[in-house]
Amino acid sequence: MTAVPAIGREPGALLLSEIREQPAALERLLGHSSEYAAVAAVARDRRLSVVRMVGHGSSDNAASYGVYAFGLLPGWTALRDSISLSVYYGAEIDLTGSCIVALSQSGETPDVLAYVERARARGALTIAITNDPLSALGTAAELVLPLAAGEERSIAATKTYTAQVAALALLAAHAAGRGSMIGEGIRAVAAQLDEAMPGLERRLTEIALALAFVGRMFVIGRGPEFATAREISLKLLETCRVAAEPLTATDLVHGPLAALDEMFPVWTIGSDDESLPAVREAAARAHAAGATLIASGPAGGEIAGAAFRVPVPTPAVTLLSPLLSVVPGQLLAWALAQAKGLDPDRPNGLSKITHAL
Amino acid sequence: MTAVPAIGREPGALLLSEIREQPAALERLLGHSSEYAAVAAVARDRRLSVVRMVGHGSSDNAASYGVYAFGLLPGWTALRDSISLSVYYGAEIDLTGSCIVALSQSGETPDVLAYVERARARGALTIAITNDPLSALGTAAELVLPLAAGEERSIAATKTYTAQVAALALLAAHAAGRGSMIGEGIRAVAAQLDEAMPGLERRLTEIALALAFVGRMFVIGRGPEFATAREISLKLLETCRVAAEPLTATDLVHGPLAALDEMFPVWTIGSDDESLPAVREAAARAHAAGATLIASGPAGGEIAGAAFRVPVPTPAVTLLSPLLSVVPGQLLAWALAQAKGLDPDRPNGLSKITHAL
Repeated sequence: MTAVPAIGREPGALLLSEIREQPAALERLLGHSSEYAAVAAVARDRRLSVVRMVGHGSSDNAASYGVYAFGLLPGWTALRDSISLSVYYGAEIDLTGSCIVALSQSGETPDVLAYVERARARGALTIAITNDPLSALGTAAELVLPLAAGEERSIAATKTYTAQVAALALLAAHAAGRGSMIGEGIRAVAAQLDEAMPGLERRLTEIALALAFVGRMFVIGRGPEFATAREISLKLLETCRVAAEPLTATDLVHGPLAALDEMFPVWTIGSDDESLPAVREAAARAHAAGATLIASGPAGGEIAGAAFRVPVPTPAVTLLSPLLSVVPGQLLAWALAQAKGLDPDRPNGLSKITHAL
Repeated sequence: MTAVPAIGREPGALLLSEIREQPAALERLLGHSSEYAAVAAVARDRRLSVVRMVGHGSSDNAASYGVYAFGLLPGWTALRDSISLSVYYGAEIDLTGSCIVALSQSGETPDVLAYVERARARGALTIAITNDPLSALGTAAELVLPLAAGEERSIAATKTYTAQVAALALLAAHAAGRGSMIGEGIRAVAAQLDEAMPGLERRLTEIALALAFVGRMFVIGRGPEFATAREISLKLLETCRVAAEPLTATDLVHGPLAALDEMFPVWTIGSDDESLPAVREAAARAHAAGATLIASGPAGGEIAGAAFRVPVPTPAVTLLSPLLSVVPGQLLAWALAQAKGLDPDRPNGLSKITHAL
């Protein structure tokens, strides 16, 4: 075990304080709603139809949410674009008609920056969403939107992830002329999250004790909640050394199901939408294979056979569920790291801004 | 352990015979090159610019390769589209200008079929690539292309995966007017693979013994070889109950690196292209974290610090490397299952055609 507590600080204190700060960060983002509306208007005026999102790590996980936000609100095709295809392999793809949405907390990720510079030179509308609008990325993009999450000191991203999810929802909503509906929805979610936080902290501390010896896990989400599955898996990998793998409900039954046994817990995210039947069925198959189920999400109560339940509040706007569903996973990462004697604020070999590769 | 050997058959015999059959399957596909040329001409004539690939499991892994094949050959935007977004959530996305490439070995995957029917009704050009052109999918699509891999009896796909990769390369090549160059390249790869197969079988049998107690693994590939990383991970999950997770070189350093230790081997795929420096650096960081490295791919010899090396031949056309790089992973799945006392022909809880979810 490699925990090296800093002087005068409990392991995980940074991470926990930033998890708790998320409702306030969402409120700050909403203060910039008119800027999001203005940028969406530019994209609409130029009749762009393809949104290419780029980012790494948690930013790329938020982009998985963007596929659904843009697809369901303005009906745009949004994709997580391959940075290597254009930056390293030099693919000559026509970018007129494309809108780039670059996601980087720091605004200093080198290949995201290179991608944006290249795309702008090739005629795409480039939009940066970053915590630091004065960063290299903020300067390179034609338009820049603040994430407004406040400085993130923990290496494992939490409040910047939820702010990115909310930012993508807000941008997509303004593109669809539904900015105020989604803005109000985010405000309501922030209040629900604030109220639920103390109970969730207690509950995840209990669950973490039971999972202290877990070495691998699947995290199942579908539709907009696949982003949540990816982000929870990443938190567990980077802070708890758990080989956690995100899968859609469909992915699970196309192979990985065969790997399950009693030592392999499955975290399922149930949301009150069209994805619920598939998630319920995937959970039932995992349970039949002997896996220990943890049921979370607003519809966690609808998942049969769960050994542990961590429901979150039901949001007024279902598309915003991922803002709530990710929080129990963040808290599990915090609590499980402590149960394993690890310091989640200092993951092995990681730094806040990843410069290489 | 759940191995139930069938009467008169060694565990894994089906899987091995289909792995060995891959060079012949690639040759059969080439016999249909003119059909691929004709379909590519239709897509070109209609001035389509976005290719939406859909499929599950190994088919979806092959689609990861298609992103690069279409991006690098005709310069088209190709994406692994979300089936749930349109089929379950009913997103109203403009599909004029889109070409659908539906990948299904059986041609009977229900939601792939539903996706194609919906997309065709909404004006997209729909193309099915399937082993059974008379299947429901072959009938529903406007154009159908044979995979010609021959009946696949093992539940874990092997020859249909490589045939799908080759089919996507061939379709993309014809769209770029380079069909004969890529066709010749595939023919040469088939010959290289046939020659290398016996040596690879022996080598992977040795390596599997050393990995018999492995419970988790990362598989690192970048660019076109990310498809290989995904497919190798899926084989290990479904046949060997190893929690194997595919990562790009960049993904690894954005978090998962922190999970590595001596009990966590990392399989790296080195290809002689623009991705090699990043894969080498990711391997070096994994090695520094104590992970046991397995170096494969045509440039596996360039990865420092590997405990095991499984090089494959260097193809004349670098973009075709994934046809070779995946084979050591398929053979590892076969050999490791046996080392673990599992029957890779009968993975727990899986069936050949996945009907539900």
